[in-house]
Amino acid sequence: MPKLLLLARKSDDYLHQLETARLPELDIVTTPDLNIELVFGEPNLIRDALPLLPRLKWVQAMWAGVEPLLDPALRRDYILTNARGVFGPLMSEYVFGYLLLHERKILQRYFSQQKNLWDKTVPGTLREKTLGLLGVGSIGAYLANTAKHFGMTVHGFTRTSESCPDVDVYFHANVSDFAKNLDYLICVLPNTNATRHIIDSSVLKSLPSHALFINVGRGNAVDETALAESLASGQMSGAILDVFQQEPLPPNHIFWRTPNLLITSHTAAPSFPKDISELFIENYKRYSRGEELKYRVDFERGY
Amino acid sequence: MPKLLLLARKSDDYLHQLETARLPELDIVTTPDLNIELVFGEPNLIRDALPLLPRLKWVQAMWAGVEPLLDPALRRDYILTNARGVFGPLMSEYVFGYLLLHERKILQRYFSQQKNLWDKTVPGTLREKTLGLLGVGSIGAYLANTAKHFGMTVHGFTRTSESCPDVDVYFHANVSDFAKNLDYLICVLPNTNATRHIIDSSVLKSLPSHALFINVGRGNAVDETALAESLASGQMSGAILDVFQQEPLPPNHIFWRTPNLLITSHTAAPSFPKDISELFIENYKRYSRGEELKYRVDFERGY
Repeated sequence: MPKLLLLARKSDDYLHQLETARLPELDIVTTPDLNIELVFGEPNLIRDALPLLPRLKWVQAMWAGVEPLLDPALRRDYILTNARGVFGPLMSEYVFGYLLLHERKILQRYFSQQKNLWDKTVPGTLREKTLGLLGVGSIGAYLANTAKHFGMTVHGFTRTSESCPDVDVYFHANVSDFAKNLDYLICVLPNTNATRHIIDSSVLKSLPSHALFINVGRGNAVDETALAESLASGQMSGAILDVFQQEPLPPNHIFWRTPNLLITSHTAAPSFPKDISELFIENYKRYSRGEELKYRVDFERGY
Repeated sequence: MPKLLLLARKSDDYLHQLETARLPELDIVTTPDLNIELVFGEPNLIRDALPLLPRLKWVQAMWAGVEPLLDPALRRDYILTNARGVFGPLMSEYVFGYLLLHERKILQRYFSQQKNLWDKTVPGTLREKTLGLLGVGSIGAYLANTAKHFGMTVHGFTRTSESCPDVDVYFHANVSDFAKNLDYLICVLPNTNATRHIIDSSVLKSLPSHALFINVGRGNAVDETALAESLASGQMSGAILDVFQQEPLPPNHIFWRTPNLLITSHTAAPSFPKDISELFIENYKRYSRGEELKYRVDFERGY
């Protein structure tokens, strides 16, 4: 009977989900031992356990981002799969919630109401606006689909796949060219060496002055100093950041004092135990049948 | 050549749209005279002009709500058409903007940021929630479609049509029964005698305590005193109101002091000259060809 190590801060929620599924032939434990073959857990907790698991064959990460396990100093003699496919709907609610906050001037109206003002300011609309996706994986594809629902044009920047039916125009070479005609730039990139500071001052300067930037990917994609300068100078309209180079964002970070910036503390797409357990269960059934696993991570590529 | 009276506060915008369309055989004026056959305008302005137009045949209203023209004391010897079909996308942006504001706890996160707090509060989601539409016309159908995009269940209360493919369950008899299992109650009703105070204290008491109420229909559908009491007592989670029995909302109205209430000053779906002119042009072409007009209002029914 394969032994599974469950490593999560809220391990009870996950245990409940796995027990409800009544998986045959699976012995679930929550502390490392020498006979463990499978791990289902949070990447930062898994990292510490790696040296204690000589029989490890497969790790299912509970997150999309698996940076803690990509350190070249760590072992790579196991199959690593990440959480994919489940975050699209949540990311879409986040991104379009904030785009609509902006267009509908919801904060302005809230403050008008505090002053007993009947505020007739005409709202903007998403319709006919252009959304640029920096990264067109499963989350990007989901965002593109929601954008189409709202009558938008979708531009996609990718170095790999061009298979998303909801992307109208693809860009490959130059991120500044891609940024030039966007109303909204959405970064959905993972943390890899290739994505570091891909959004730099020249990309930010290429954005139209009314443009909005949202980062739901990883903090290292952004030159944070350049972004703070761009926002402070009014060169762009605003930014909504869920991810940062250092998290939690340090108390003295300039972003706490940067205008036209909303900080959402890495809450865009939480891993709900039900969703993530379903994904593990699907993959575990494949594992038991000796089939190829879904969502396998390439250690070199980083996702 | 038929003579058209254009009656709008922003008549230049509309004139520009109509001139661009180069409609054949149409003489456009902006002050009433005895030879006017057609009117394209805002219902409150049209009301005053009605006695001055002996040859009037057709009025195309620029709004969805045509209450100013429904007073039984006014003439009804002309065809009245309203603006329909164009407000669905805007209403959808409004409704889902505010639903996401609520689920994503956007205001709370904004205030956390002002206090330099890294706020990890887990967001809610629209997925698997139940949206109740009070009124399932063209706007309701559009909202139902967006709700389906976000993975929601849609309940519809209607006394007439059941033709919307995105409504999962219809209710007909009792609004309180309809309200019982909703996460969000959205009122899209026009102002008619049949809709007056349809949302009363018993309906509000039937809503689950976590429920949110949004009114994008007309203010008379709501017993405002009952709603203020319900919100003040915490019996329901919150309300977002775009429309009121009296607009602008009077300075001494209790709603300015009611907790968990957002006021948006009748801005949910503004009539954009481009959209409304396209609708008039479509109907004018039908009119010139002697065809039946679209969006005809039944004076008795009120929409």
